[in-house]
Amino acid sequence: MFEFAVQAQSGRARTASFTTPHGTVQTPMFMPVGTQGTVKGLSPQELSEIGSQIVLANTYHLMLRPGPELVAAHGGLPGFTAYPGPFLTDSGGFQVMSLGHMRRITEQGVTFKSHLDGSSVQLTPERSMEVQEALGADIIMAFDECPPFPAERDYIQASLERTVRWLDRCQAARTREDQALFAIVQGGIHPDLRQQSIDATLPYATPGFAIGGLAVGESKEQMFPAVAFTAERLPANKPRYLMGVGHPEDLVAGIALGVDLFDCVYPTRTGRFGYALTDDGRLNMNSSAPRSQLEPIDATCDCYACRHYTRAYLAHLLRAEEMLAPRMLSLHNLRYLHRLVERAREAVVQGRYGDWAREWGERYFKKALPLWFEEVLTVSAALGITSTTA
Amino acid sequence: MFEFAVQAQSGRARTASFTTPHGTVQTPMFMPVGTQGTVKGLSPQELSEIGSQIVLANTYHLMLRPGPELVAAHGGLPGFTAYPGPFLTDSGGFQVMSLGHMRRITEQGVTFKSHLDGSSVQLTPERSMEVQEALGADIIMAFDECPPFPAERDYIQASLERTVRWLDRCQAARTREDQALFAIVQGGIHPDLRQQSIDATLPYATPGFAIGGLAVGESKEQMFPAVAFTAERLPANKPRYLMGVGHPEDLVAGIALGVDLFDCVYPTRTGRFGYALTDDGRLNMNSSAPRSQLEPIDATCDCYACRHYTRAYLAHLLRAEEMLAPRMLSLHNLRYLHRLVERAREAVVQGRYGDWAREWGERYFKKALPLWFEEVLTVSAALGITSTTA
Repeated sequence: MFEFAVQAQSGRARTASFTTPHGTVQTPMFMPVGTQGTVKGLSPQELSEIGSQIVLANTYHLMLRPGPELVAAHGGLPGFTAYPGPFLTDSGGFQVMSLGHMRRITEQGVTFKSHLDGSSVQLTPERSMEVQEALGADIIMAFDECPPFPAERDYIQASLERTVRWLDRCQAARTREDQALFAIVQGGIHPDLRQQSIDATLPYATPGFAIGGLAVGESKEQMFPAVAFTAERLPANKPRYLMGVGHPEDLVAGIALGVDLFDCVYPTRTGRFGYALTDDGRLNMNSSAPRSQLEPIDATCDCYACRHYTRAYLAHLLRAEEMLAPRMLSLHNLRYLHRLVERAREAVVQGRYGDWAREWGERYFKKALPLWFEEVLTVSAALGITSTTA
Repeated sequence: MFEFAVQAQSGRARTASFTTPHGTVQTPMFMPVGTQGTVKGLSPQELSEIGSQIVLANTYHLMLRPGPELVAAHGGLPGFTAYPGPFLTDSGGFQVMSLGHMRRITEQGVTFKSHLDGSSVQLTPERSMEVQEALGADIIMAFDECPPFPAERDYIQASLERTVRWLDRCQAARTREDQALFAIVQGGIHPDLRQQSIDATLPYATPGFAIGGLAVGESKEQMFPAVAFTAERLPANKPRYLMGVGHPEDLVAGIALGVDLFDCVYPTRTGRFGYALTDDGRLNMNSSAPRSQLEPIDATCDCYACRHYTRAYLAHLLRAEEMLAPRMLSLHNLRYLHRLVERAREAVVQGRYGDWAREWGERYFKKALPLWFEEVLTVSAALGITSTTA
């Protein structure tokens, strides 16, 4: 039911197909985030048109409102949201942790105050499974703790050990066969703690593994060595999901290190704030220059906004606080990331991912590749495998 | 270039085609309002899909931001907004008048303070024509004064006389042949003043006439006799446009009295506030009932929202303050009004507009037709013409 077939590899980068009950996902893939059961401002038809193949939804938000029962009454997320393809739900853990002082963690689970009405709610591995089964996503995530950055080493260690015990309880509690439960590897930016988490997690042999605990405030120089270390140690025949990432440069680097799946609110959020993603970097549509530019955001982009609108029109919509502006910039930014992974897949198939990533980076970073990006490319190439069909 | 061909009549209701440089409008038609060059939240593709045939844009707003020069640099509103069909621009007069104490009216024109930056701006018949020519709509409106309701008789009389002098200046000032200038009849709710305005306006023989000065606060019992009186006295071979109207019942009644064109922000504005238009009246999606209803807003509606979403999902989006909610409710409401005029056209062709309007009203008003609506149907039928092909 969940088949992961690697089709080509270039350095550590790879392309694969991941079969799920609601459709096949071609990796590497970026997953748009539909926090409350909607990718902000966009329709499912638009998502399909721009190449989205799987959508993420948040257990924490949907559990509190409208509640899992109502989603289940619609036959799960596809019926509720009208997005017919695969979904991935997070476990609720990350968002509960980010509530800070409003939550209390014990071995049993997490007790927190709802951000909606202040009521006390408990989330445990068992409850997370129950809610995620009601939501009905194709990929569900184990209930984990994601420590903040920075955190004490001792805390990270205790936390990752508890996360493994919670994984055990998740596996015991779940009842549906048509959902792939992914385990999450923690350990912060410490190689030995990452190794400990990997050693304890891999025996669960889940159909996919997530790299958690990153993109929480550390620098890219700190994050990518941890990604490289972890991805390398995860099974080659299962999808690797880097949670909460990211920016275009993070996708290009993550793919170089063998990551298959990404998610982040960044493209839609930065779009709502008036920024457009391009190969030349992020364009500030709130600045004065675009107001008189009669060209599209990106002449090579095939999204609705770039096919129909000038920068001047979109800049006008932004200044006029018209809803069409965040909608169109969100659409463009998601299409940009989808085109980015399409181009990455093509480069992998052609056995030139490293070269492509360097060319992309030289334009994006305006000739000055940052050291962390150079090192990622070096690490990726060090594997020495080029375009092997698995 | 602007051909108005009446195809059928039923009582005073009629259906016609109005040819413009950017396409043919089948009347009766409701025109969505794109105040700032965008029908709030919707794309041109969606407007075409739901049956919009002509879009209104506001001269006042576009003159202040982004300015007529930028729109002209895009080749006018179709290039700027990517809506390829016909546009109608208002003259700017109505919106300037509604600024109240922030404006000063003289024979020359109106001086007002911009709501954006407080700067002093002058709008005259000549300037209105200049701006509307830059915006490039197919139908442009004469610069008029729309008195508030209530207003002194003497003021209304002086104002309508000035409006005729301004019409004269508009005709003298305009230079483009590919735009149809519509004159606007004023006179409040006073038959003798309406007659005076009609007598002074008709000799200008513009390709269409608007019924102005209504829907500004008077009751429906006051408005519709004025509509009936005016529409009856306007030429049968030219389109009649009832400005700023309206609600579903206003369209059904206006069509009964021979009105061909309508515009109003109501469907999109009430949609943003969480209300959905149906044959059974306005549905409050903010109330508790829809939160658990697994049916669409309207099972007979073919809009994207009704084909894909339950009331429960849309109610969830509203509570969660998700952008997709106002977008989908705006789309549905506009589609509702477009379907309403489609059904009206069909009833006219079948020679049973009065019967259809009564059936529609009995459901919409829950059996209790208001007296003003009854009277409209009586007046409409009194003409005694049924299904004459012109």
